[in-house]
Amino acid sequence: MMEALLDLTEWSDLPDSARAMARLSLFDWMVCGLAGVGEPVSAILRAHVAGSGAATVFGGGTAPARAAALANGTISHALDYDDTHFGHIGHLSVGIYPAALAVGQEVGADTAAVVDAFLVGAEAAIRIGMVLGVGHYNRGFHQTATAGAFGATIAAGRLYGLTRGQMRVALGLCATRASGLKSQFGTMGKPLNAGIAASNGVECAALALAGMTSASDGIWGPQGFVATHSDAPMLWDSRAAFLFEDVQYKLHACCHGTHAMIEALGAVKRQHNLPAERVAAIRLRTSPRWLSVCDIKTPRTGLEVKFSYAWLAGMVLSGIATSSDRSYTDALAQDAALTDFARRITVTGDAAVGEMQALGQVKTVDGQIIRFAHDLAARQPLDQLQAALRAKADGLIGVERAGQLWAGAQTAQDLGRMMQA
Amino acid sequence: MMEALLDLTEWSDLPDSARAMARLSLFDWMVCGLAGVGEPVSAILRAHVAGSGAATVFGGGTAPARAAALANGTISHALDYDDTHFGHIGHLSVGIYPAALAVGQEVGADTAAVVDAFLVGAEAAIRIGMVLGVGHYNRGFHQTATAGAFGATIAAGRLYGLTRGQMRVALGLCATRASGLKSQFGTMGKPLNAGIAASNGVECAALALAGMTSASDGIWGPQGFVATHSDAPMLWDSRAAFLFEDVQYKLHACCHGTHAMIEALGAVKRQHNLPAERVAAIRLRTSPRWLSVCDIKTPRTGLEVKFSYAWLAGMVLSGIATSSDRSYTDALAQDAALTDFARRITVTGDAAVGEMQALGQVKTVDGQIIRFAHDLAARQPLDQLQAALRAKADGLIGVERAGQLWAGAQTAQDLGRMMQA
Repeated sequence: MMEALLDLTEWSDLPDSARAMARLSLFDWMVCGLAGVGEPVSAILRAHVAGSGAATVFGGGTAPARAAALANGTISHALDYDDTHFGHIGHLSVGIYPAALAVGQEVGADTAAVVDAFLVGAEAAIRIGMVLGVGHYNRGFHQTATAGAFGATIAAGRLYGLTRGQMRVALGLCATRASGLKSQFGTMGKPLNAGIAASNGVECAALALAGMTSASDGIWGPQGFVATHSDAPMLWDSRAAFLFEDVQYKLHACCHGTHAMIEALGAVKRQHNLPAERVAAIRLRTSPRWLSVCDIKTPRTGLEVKFSYAWLAGMVLSGIATSSDRSYTDALAQDAALTDFARRITVTGDAAVGEMQALGQVKTVDGQIIRFAHDLAARQPLDQLQAALRAKADGLIGVERAGQLWAGAQTAQDLGRMMQA
Repeated sequence: MMEALLDLTEWSDLPDSARAMARLSLFDWMVCGLAGVGEPVSAILRAHVAGSGAATVFGGGTAPARAAALANGTISHALDYDDTHFGHIGHLSVGIYPAALAVGQEVGADTAAVVDAFLVGAEAAIRIGMVLGVGHYNRGFHQTATAGAFGATIAAGRLYGLTRGQMRVALGLCATRASGLKSQFGTMGKPLNAGIAASNGVECAALALAGMTSASDGIWGPQGFVATHSDAPMLWDSRAAFLFEDVQYKLHACCHGTHAMIEALGAVKRQHNLPAERVAAIRLRTSPRWLSVCDIKTPRTGLEVKFSYAWLAGMVLSGIATSSDRSYTDALAQDAALTDFARRITVTGDAAVGEMQALGQVKTVDGQIIRFAHDLAARQPLDQLQAALRAKADGLIGVERAGQLWAGAQTAQDLGRMMQA
């Protein structure tokens, strides 16, 4: 299995569709990083790594690659608004892009090389995450940090130009170094876990380049990472396809349980050009799991709005951006039109509806019935995703900066300049 | 249990006997670090952290505290000649002193504060190592790195002056960061594990000082370090005594299975003023486990001499230093006197003899029978240990430098100056 993993790290003929998604992840990751600069944990990390070096830190200033990766992983995960992957059970970009970009700046790579390094690292992280499996996650490990560190190591290693033998060493060192627990959730330790993955990747790759030795198979070998960190490991997925393309973006700054409904109603509004005032009633069926989580009937604060199907449905149909954290004000909870609209929606739990799904119907004032259904796990057309991420970016960092970022950058140095606040 | 651990981190009225042992460990650790500077892994780590900062790196030059701790932990464990603790199942000094000294230099501490910080960190690491237990070790984790990281965090945290609340955060962050696998044994990853422990300690303590938050009980809490890393955790040892005083020093640069015999025969030689030529016969009883390991009857190389009871017995009685790596030349394997002496020793496996024990008798040319017995686990008188460690140092780094180191240093800065080759 180690050989299959090493083969993957050397993959050069990457599919265009996967590359396009990896570029989209780069854009979204940069947006999350820039939007997260003002968070308290970001200020701590920026001060912690303050110095100078080859790599840029979100918000400006530079640090050595390892330190920049630690800070940027943490800062970009501070809002918890970055991409996820259900196979891997974790966040991909925040653990891997900071390593790829920091090393990319150190070695003077162009953006295309950074994106390819990320893509291969992410694909490996997904498959290692799947090998570690649900048992690893349920035991208490945080795949973003553990499997993510291997992805970061591979991304950094590709940019350092490691030989196959050196990559094997780098992965062996990562096996003795990768860590991260879910018990940090709800604290600053959670975003730090992403930084830990990224910084471990940079350091393990650099030490391998410098000539270290390590276990020949630190991952699957005796007392290796899998044996020590998973009670019921799964087989390596040997499909040649890029599983990365199932990556999920977080498009709305509210409870994940509401996202399928938001997507479904957004499509109804777009396809039928339907304003809120023409909606007579909405019936929503959702997973029973979410009823105790995000079905607050009368939210009192902006934070509670994030957990209210009724308010969020009104926001979508009234054209209020659910993607921007700034929409969720306390005043919105008192808004007369939304309060009125909320009376028209009925939410029912249905065990046949998956946690990532929403089903239902909208009845218009003319008596027309429009059925809707959305499954977050289904792949979205690229252009729809692009538009949605661009809108998210506009809300988070402003139209002008989002536009500059969207226009792209030729080199890692250019990307570094865009990370400055 | 977290409260008991936090109480331990605040312990100020430390027993003199434990402090004396901690000072001895500082001396021995510095000797191992200075002796390890020429190893290949040391060159890699020195180059990896090359830069400038508050802390000295073994061999000269400075680096930021975290990086210096990474390098010094690795360099001082390169020869694998440093202290161990059977309760903790690991090496203490190499994971903890690099953190204490690097932070000590950063904050301008005196040596006494560095020693106290180490002692409290080591004591905590021992007890956490005992909680993780043999199951943790057998699963594949390397206590030197895992439990050691908590000790390093506490040592660094004391020197940074963390409040009790900050120390709790530092330990929480260490829980999501501590790592280290035994599958690195036999590679450069093994000494690196000590550096990983030390560097994790410095970074977790620094981040806690800077205001991070973390799980309130990252060690024993749900999905904490113990739950995720041990299948059969043991209870916290609440004895008020310092278990650290059971620390063991490696006094001979040869197979561990021969050390009890070497100690026993050394005592016989001292007490009876017995030169090799007055020995007619030696009967040695040892654990059967060692017969296939270190009973090479006719060693062909200096390396094989390290695994030969017969040659090592002759070396002890002839006064050839077993503590110095330089004694074990290929020529020694051909030495006529030792070849002759080797015929006088008979080695027998005895299941009643423990792995750390040696039993037997020496028959002199006058027919006198001198019985001997040694148990490495038994505590040695301090003056004997001091003499033995001083002799080891003389052999490893030369009499002059050993003497300077022995004379001691008032401050962490003075210790830093002594680390320069």
